[in-house]
Amino acid sequence: MRIAFQGATGAYSEAAAQRLCPDADTVPQESFEDVFEAVRIARASHGILPIENSVGGSIHRNYDLLLEHDLPIVAETELAVVHNLLALPGTPKEAIKRVFSHPQALAQCERYVRSLPGVEMVATYDTAGSARLIRDGGLTDTAAIASARAAEVFGLEILEAGIQDYSDNITRFILISREPEPLGPPDKTTIAFAVHNVPGALFKALSVFALRDIDLTKLESRPARGRPWEYLFYADLGVGRGDVKCGRAIVHLAESARWVKTLGSYPRWRASSAGG
Amino acid sequence: MRIAFQGATGAYSEAAAQRLCPDADTVPQESFEDVFEAVRIARASHGILPIENSVGGSIHRNYDLLLEHDLPIVAETELAVVHNLLALPGTPKEAIKRVFSHPQALAQCERYVRSLPGVEMVATYDTAGSARLIRDGGLTDTAAIASARAAEVFGLEILEAGIQDYSDNITRFILISREPEPLGPPDKTTIAFAVHNVPGALFKALSVFALRDIDLTKLESRPARGRPWEYLFYADLGVGRGDVKCGRAIVHLAESARWVKTLGSYPRWRASSAGG
Repeated sequence: MRIAFQGATGAYSEAAAQRLCPDADTVPQESFEDVFEAVRIARASHGILPIENSVGGSIHRNYDLLLEHDLPIVAETELAVVHNLLALPGTPKEAIKRVFSHPQALAQCERYVRSLPGVEMVATYDTAGSARLIRDGGLTDTAAIASARAAEVFGLEILEAGIQDYSDNITRFILISREPEPLGPPDKTTIAFAVHNVPGALFKALSVFALRDIDLTKLESRPARGRPWEYLFYADLGVGRGDVKCGRAIVHLAESARWVKTLGSYPRWRASSAGG
Repeated sequence: MRIAFQGATGAYSEAAAQRLCPDADTVPQESFEDVFEAVRIARASHGILPIENSVGGSIHRNYDLLLEHDLPIVAETELAVVHNLLALPGTPKEAIKRVFSHPQALAQCERYVRSLPGVEMVATYDTAGSARLIRDGGLTDTAAIASARAAEVFGLEILEAGIQDYSDNITRFILISREPEPLGPPDKTTIAFAVHNVPGALFKALSVFALRDIDLTKLESRPARGRPWEYLFYADLGVGRGDVKCGRAIVHLAESARWVKTLGSYPRWRASSAGG
């Protein structure tokens, strides 16, 4: 297995890939688009993508890319985002004049960095890459915000752990592939569908699941872009696509929805199934 | 009217406040929490907050703050986020060595900044504040990523307009107040509710709206934090809270939901009602 991820070695997406598949090779990519492309042209067998965050919400951009491509979801995992302040071993916190990290990580630790007097924030292209810059440059006045794994990889010390502004910061990641071959027996199915924007249309759509006792573990609406009178929905169903009642519900849904697309069927992540 | 907003003069939130209420005074705050606090202690009459974005999804943090406080939503507006590269008048693009901006704006323009060879990204505490830094310091080798309004306010020139990586980047903002006094006749109501995580619970909850022909313009589920078997929902209803069928639906919903909270009833934003 070769899993494409966005970022550099030591990135959170890479940690999520390793959590799902400890023995897989990981292939860094510049953007989410590049992750899809790497899977599409078989440079990688799989791709890992963040899909929602407990503080920031769903990453619509990746749902859009799932809808544009035909690369099914085959697994999911969750990762608590724990940002750390990393520096060369022996660097005292008082010596820090600059902090390097990816803009998203700087944003997630903004309150903490503000509490460090006179420290400048320099944005870089990834969290782990910031740790590498410090190691390579021997920078004794600079810290990086990155994962504990990045500290390990680049021989840095954790000056302070868990510096993110919101402690309950969990990201859900999905694994995509070219073939719909789930990493285990599937008991969860992700679909997207659109309904006409008339009162009751969603209620009718949901009846196809309720009438078959299918649990919805996620439901989110979104105005369809460029189609002001159409609504798009993402739903996670607590049932595998191969289950006869799931198949019947989706066929039933197609009767009233404008369109339905199955984005994948895969084993639901269970914390106890964690590799690490 | 005095409207508290997160950021500095020229921030997108301030532009949203001015779009809703062109004559209001605006009061800068450091964080979203500070916006709520400013309204709570009457340092401001209102507060403006981003609540969802077309690329990034719902801003769960602000929903959490709405649930923690009793400060009703009284209006909403939408703003296209257009980032621009700003510099001192006469600065050629080739002279730019550094780009200043808030980490979120840097993240939203990452692909563009990567295309500028050898340019360093420096993160600051806000977009408009970056423009001010350039003006105050007379920095001829530095650009800021900020709004066109920030260029006006701080006498900078737009070197390139619309540099965000995703062109369709729209943010919805809400206006909060201490009193439930909507800025116009309310025809939209935002509620949050929790249901027991049993199959069909959501379907039952939604029946209270479908049976009364009430349109749902937004519906989003979210696992309730610290309560693994409970789901939280945000819904926007296409009806004012004072409408008898809205009142009846909410009473009906309370029969089966674990709890229901009305976050506000207010006039739905219409692009044609824009002040600017």
